[in-house]
Formats: sequence, C-alpha cells, structure tokens
Amino acid sequence: MHRVRVRIVEDALDANNTIARANRDDFDRAGVTVANLMGAPGAGKTALLERVLRELGDLRPGVLEGDVQGSLDADRLASLHVPVTQLQTAVGFGGECHLDANMVRSALPALPLEDVDLLIVENVGNLVCPAEFRIGEDVRMMVSSVAEGEDKPLKYPLMFRACELVVINKLDLLPYVDFDMERFLHHLDAVHPGVETIQLSARTGEGVEGFRSWLERVPVRAPA
Amino acid sequence: MHRVRVRIVEDALDANNTIARANRDDFDRAGVTVANLMGAPGAGKTALLERVLRELGDLRPGVLEGDVQGSLDADRLASLHVPVTQLQTAVGFGGECHLDANMVRSALPALPLEDVDLLIVENVGNLVCPAEFRIGEDVRMMVSSVAEGEDKPLKYPLMFRACELVVINKLDLLPYVDFDMERFLHHLDAVHPGVETIQLSARTGEGVEGFRSWLERVPVRAPA
Repeated sequence: MHRVRVRIVEDALDANNTIARANRDDFDRAGVTVANLMGAPGAGKTALLERVLRELGDLRPGVLEGDVQGSLDADRLASLHVPVTQLQTAVGFGGECHLDANMVRSALPALPLEDVDLLIVENVGNLVCPAEFRIGEDVRMMVSSVAEGEDKPLKYPLMFRACELVVINKLDLLPYVDFDMERFLHHLDAVHPGVETIQLSARTGEGVEGFRSWLERVPVRAPA
Repeated sequence: MHRVRVRIVEDALDANNTIARANRDDFDRAGVTVANLMGAPGAGKTALLERVLRELGDLRPGVLEGDVQGSLDADRLASLHVPVTQLQTAVGFGGECHLDANMVRSALPALPLEDVDLLIVENVGNLVCPAEFRIGEDVRMMVSSVAEGEDKPLKYPLMFRACELVVINKLDLLPYVDFDMERFLHHLDAVHPGVETIQLSARTGEGVEGFRSWLERVPVRAPA
C-alpha cells in the first residue's frame, strides 16, 4: 500500500513537471520572469510584498495570489495598484494545500502578462507540499519568521532546500523570542549549504532594501 | 479533470474515515482517550506540551509525535519521561503534510496503550490538510499564535472549524506584533461560532493552567 502511494505521488509529480515546463515556455514567450514565494502561514509573505511592490526599479510587478479560499491578501495587495490575480485551490481544486502547475496554467488567461515583467506567485501558506510542485517559475524564495523557531530547516528540509533565497523575517521580534540566529543559519547550512539569505523586518522596514535589490536582479531574461 | 480530482479526494476521505473508526474502537477498548493537536509550523504545539505533560492530575499522558521527518520534538518531549512514539510521514508515506488514520494505525503496535490514559497526537505543522483527516481521535485542538496574524481563521476556516478548542498562544508577544485580539475572536466566531478558546503563553506559562484543566476534563470516558 505504501509503495503504491509513493508511485502515485511520483507519477503526479512527473505530470506536474510537464505542465510546469509548458507554463515556463509561455512565460518566457511573454518575457515574464516568475518567482514562487513560499512560507508558513503568518511568516509575513504578504507584508513583505506590500513593502517592495511599489518600487522595483524599472520592473513592472504583478502578483498571482494563491489561497485555499478567500481573497484577503489579494485585496491588501490590490490597494498598491499592482495587477493582482486570485487563485483559490478550494474552487475546482479540492482545497489543495499548495499551488501546482495545472492550477497556475488555469490562471494564465486571467494574467495580464503584457503589463508585467516580474510575476510573483504567493503560494499557499505551508512548509511541506508547495516545495514539491514546480509551477513554471524561474526562482523559488521562501520566508521564515524568527517567531517560528530556529529548528524549522531541520523539520522541513525539502522546503529550505528547494529555494534559491531564504528570507528571515520579523527581525524586530528577536529580543522577545527564543531564537538563536547562528543556530538557525547552522541548521540551514546543514540542509542547503550556501543558499542566499536576507535578514529583515517587513514590519519596520529594516533590511527590506536587500530583498528589493535581490528581486530586481531576478529577471536576467526579462525584456529591456 | 477537476471533478475527477475532487472525487478522488472524497473517496480517499471515506476510506480514511473507515480506518479512523477502527482506530477509535481500539483506543476505546484500551481505555485511552485521544486528542489531536494541530497548528501551523512554529505555533508552539511542542512548547505547550512541554508545559503540561508533567502534571495532568491522575492522568497518565502519552504522545504520538507526527513529523515529515526527524525526531526533534519527540526528543524534546521524551526528556519529560513521558512515553513518546515518533511517526514520520517521510518513512513509507510519501512525505505527507498531515497524519491520516492509516498512518496512526501503523503506529498502534508501537504505542504503550496500557500505560496511557490520554494520548496526545501532535500532528504535522500545517493549517490545511490535517483538518481533513480524522485519525480516530476523541477531540481536536489547535494552536494559533498571535505572531501569525489575526486573519488566520478567515484564511484557513476548515482548520478552525474542525477543532473543539482553539488555543491562542504567544500572548507575551502581543505588545510587539500587529494583532487585535478582538478582531481575531470576531473572525473566529464567524467561522466557528461558540468554539472554546484559551489564551496563553507557553513561553512564560501565563494561562497554561487553563489548558491543563481543559485537557484533564477531556477523558470523560477514560478508566478510573
């Protein structure tokens, strides 16, 4: 029974990768770079986007907002006058705990790709399954908050290993939580040696400039 | 395609419920009450158990610790000299993001049921899928931390609706985060009217006594 389950999972991931490649081709043709933003519920993904979307150099940003249901985050971001498209996994996708390539493909017709250089896909808040499903993105980023604890890279290694960038958020809470930054970085290095990290506070703005610069450097293949 | 996916999900949940009933029967026969403890990564589930497991009135507690991989939390709890059994979804279960009835069933032979009155099952850190899978428990509880934000009941309503108790943790961080307790409780009431809540800080111990009393009252059917 377990082996059957594992095989089904592997088949599903193969099928997902095929659709992800089709998405990537479509994004490439439109000259859109795509960044998949992941993290636990409440890590501060939306708060971080609120900080940087308004000014991204010459880049025109867009957001594909993934949630199980509702549109709270999309509503927050839409007030920044950035194109935001909502994708709900509860509508037609059985309430899945992650985005997959097929869901993103279903949203393609609704995305104003001609007005966007950098599309940020905010995934469902979850440290497990989003890391398993490519969606056709160029880069994967995650946000981990110091309030979540320093053991998270060891408990959810696939997620920390999947990303090109790990943002360590809520620096302003450091004096009030039991979180040893050196130990966190040590754990992170154990599961993903050399991965880039940026420490910041989306709440106070400290360190946000570094994330903004990182984002601006993402679209090496974006149109001039 | 979407309808097929939804049907597969429904069939899987039916099969899960059948196994959950078998688990429940076995727990009943052994005179063990079972509480399913859920919450996001870093909400403080393990820290809360560390606070209460040592003294639970006349109850002999046990823990079934669910993780994708590793045994960090089980190791923390084992130092309390409470029987702790580790269940890893990465071993034989494809790295699932939740526990299901079949996984718990596979752990039954390893559980020292004769030494336990109240078995607490610490689920995988996740606000989506754990709420969909009964495991044969008597009650479901969740931990939500004020650092996660006041919007969580609206974003993950199934989880907040599934539980008989919502623990609001990290009260000590209230002065340092943007979290309006009244608004959180209002959102919670919108998705699960009348659900019991306990506000506490597992870190400082404030309010933990209320959770301990709640746990002590759970096994109405436990042996004398």
